Amino acid sequence: MIYTDIATAAVAFREQIDRAQRILLLTHVNPDGDALGSLLGAYHALRDSGKEPIALASSALPSYCMGLPGVEAVHVYQRGDPLPEADLVWMLDTASLSRVGLIFDEHRATLASRPLIITDHHVTNDGGGSVNLIDPSAASTADLLFRLLRAMGLPVSPAAATCLTVGVITDTQSFQTSSTTPQTLRTAADLLETGADLRALIGAVYFSIPESTMRLSALVLNAMRREGALAWATVTRAQLALTGASDEASDDTITQLQRMAGVRVCVLFKERADGTVKISLRSVPGINVAAIALTWGGGGHTQAAGATLPMPLAEAFDAVLPLLRAALAESATA
Amino acid sequence: MIYTDIATAAVAFREQIDRAQRILLLTHVNPDGDALGSLLGAYHALRDSGKEPIALASSALPSYCMGLPGVEAVHVYQRGDPLPEADLVWMLDTASLSRVGLIFDEHRATLASRPLIITDHHVTNDGGGSVNLIDPSAASTADLLFRLLRAMGLPVSPAAATCLTVGVITDTQSFQTSSTTPQTLRTAADLLETGADLRALIGAVYFSIPESTMRLSALVLNAMRREGALAWATVTRAQLALTGASDEASDDTITQLQRMAGVRVCVLFKERADGTVKISLRSVPGINVAAIALTWGGGGHTQAAGATLPMPLAEAFDAVLPLLRAALAESATA
Repeated sequence: MIYTDIATAAVAFREQIDRAQRILLLTHVNPDGDALGSLLGAYHALRDSGKEPIALASSALPSYCMGLPGVEAVHVYQRGDPLPEADLVWMLDTASLSRVGLIFDEHRATLASRPLIITDHHVTNDGGGSVNLIDPSAASTADLLFRLLRAMGLPVSPAAATCLTVGVITDTQSFQTSSTTPQTLRTAADLLETGADLRALIGAVYFSIPESTMRLSALVLNAMRREGALAWATVTRAQLALTGASDEASDDTITQLQRMAGVRVCVLFKERADGTVKISLRSVPGINVAAIALTWGGGGHTQAAGATLPMPLAEAFDAVLPLLRAALAESATA
Repeated sequence: MIYTDIATAAVAFREQIDRAQRILLLTHVNPDGDALGSLLGAYHALRDSGKEPIALASSALPSYCMGLPGVEAVHVYQRGDPLPEADLVWMLDTASLSRVGLIFDEHRATLASRPLIITDHHVTNDGGGSVNLIDPSAASTADLLFRLLRAMGLPVSPAAATCLTVGVITDTQSFQTSSTTPQTLRTAADLLETGADLRALIGAVYFSIPESTMRLSALVLNAMRREGALAWATVTRAQLALTGASDEASDDTITQLQRMAGVRVCVLFKERADGTVKISLRSVPGINVAAIALTWGGGGHTQAAGATLPMPLAEAFDAVLPLLRAALAESATA
């Protein structure tokens, strides 16, 4: 059953949870703030209700989440690990079981045999649980989950509220995405009143940038290129070596390009250790970068997409930039 | 009379407004988003009530506000301009009449002779009006003003809501300052529901950075210096000339330094055209940078302060950095 209404969903969710004691909590691979915040929010609420929740992540947690209350309880799954026993599986912020990653790959049959409930805000969610709450109008799964927990009458402690708030903040880029609604802001207000430590979260998410990331960003933006409404920049292996920054350190640089006045489409070229080039694309409405990413088997959203190109940097420029120029020209005449 | 309670204040404000027809709206010199957003919010509400508001600014408006509805009605005062006739003066987001700048300097006596009402959130407000609503717990004056307008029963149009929202967003740095409360988020939710165009505002405030500012920021951060919990950077005349950026373009760079992991105190040195050096200081709680700024007659808040040093860059480094090192050492032993 797929629910979009929280009050109705709460009855069905509560029934499943009441029936279970050990509840396995799962989320998507490469968990972001919303994935982990939701996982931990559910963990706290269940534990505080006398249940035995097991929080399992398929891969490493984001560094800005390492200070979250209860984060030490999250087990990061390793190849070959057994699947913990559980009466119920609750999957959060994840469009389908396959997105759980390695845990799914190695325990597909066992997972399929267990009762599954799902809470998510992805429009692509296939609703594969016996009870599903899927609301794409929610800016984050944490937002939806908070309201569900309250509707179920489960306790939401200050610790749970802090974990849920990290999801609300990161999935909206601090209330700057177009998905931000009055509901998003009211949920955030309620979470603060419930005791969420907003100051600590803002510090961890926005005021804990590694020096190496800052230096890499300066180098990359220094060499940024601009051509009318098109902007691009490059992260080379040499720059990574010079600054000591990690491969993920430049993840935010594409947003910097996007923040420039007059930019309608931008791309970040990232030289990978294996000789390929990863591109990240952003655009304004009217320019579909997902279609461009698809040229190399990539994908994403209409306004934010990516792909990996099996060629050196110089060739990647020649392959990508003409397509972006053409897309710009086409959007100008549309 | 100084009010902190909105419902009570609304009665007194309404009485003053009902009695007047031409109402002069003033705010502080170098108006920021909250100053101008509040000025325009009041302007719309009064005009939509059949009054004749006059919006007067003492100096140039921020570029990200130039798209606000009604901004063309704001008159920027020039030296020698007459003071417009008015039955009532409403001063917004301004701690005292002297902070209005040139208008006050040139029309002090006339201003003093007119009935004055004040709406503000600055803790330093001297409450010099006949009716004052001063609430330092409000994260922005726009937040306070929105609730006051509603309590007075004045109309708040979508245009007014958009103007007020720019104040709510900029004074909280997109809900990231410690002044952000559940009330702040609920006001923002109400403003969105009233029709505020959040998407356009976010675009104007956060996604319209001039290319020259971005290039200046990259140059400055590239040469950033770090010494344990201390970070500093320098904006030179040469960098400004090279990038074509304005003197104000580096205003956000100090925040970049502050966002780095492990930074407890930071300073940006800005070489001015007149041979002086302007410093901007930021710190974590426990380190009072206002006290340091006071050394050169500067000031500000405990965690954010500034001063102008009558000396060349090299001397400014030697004057400022030892004080910051000492403040850090002292806070470590405290």
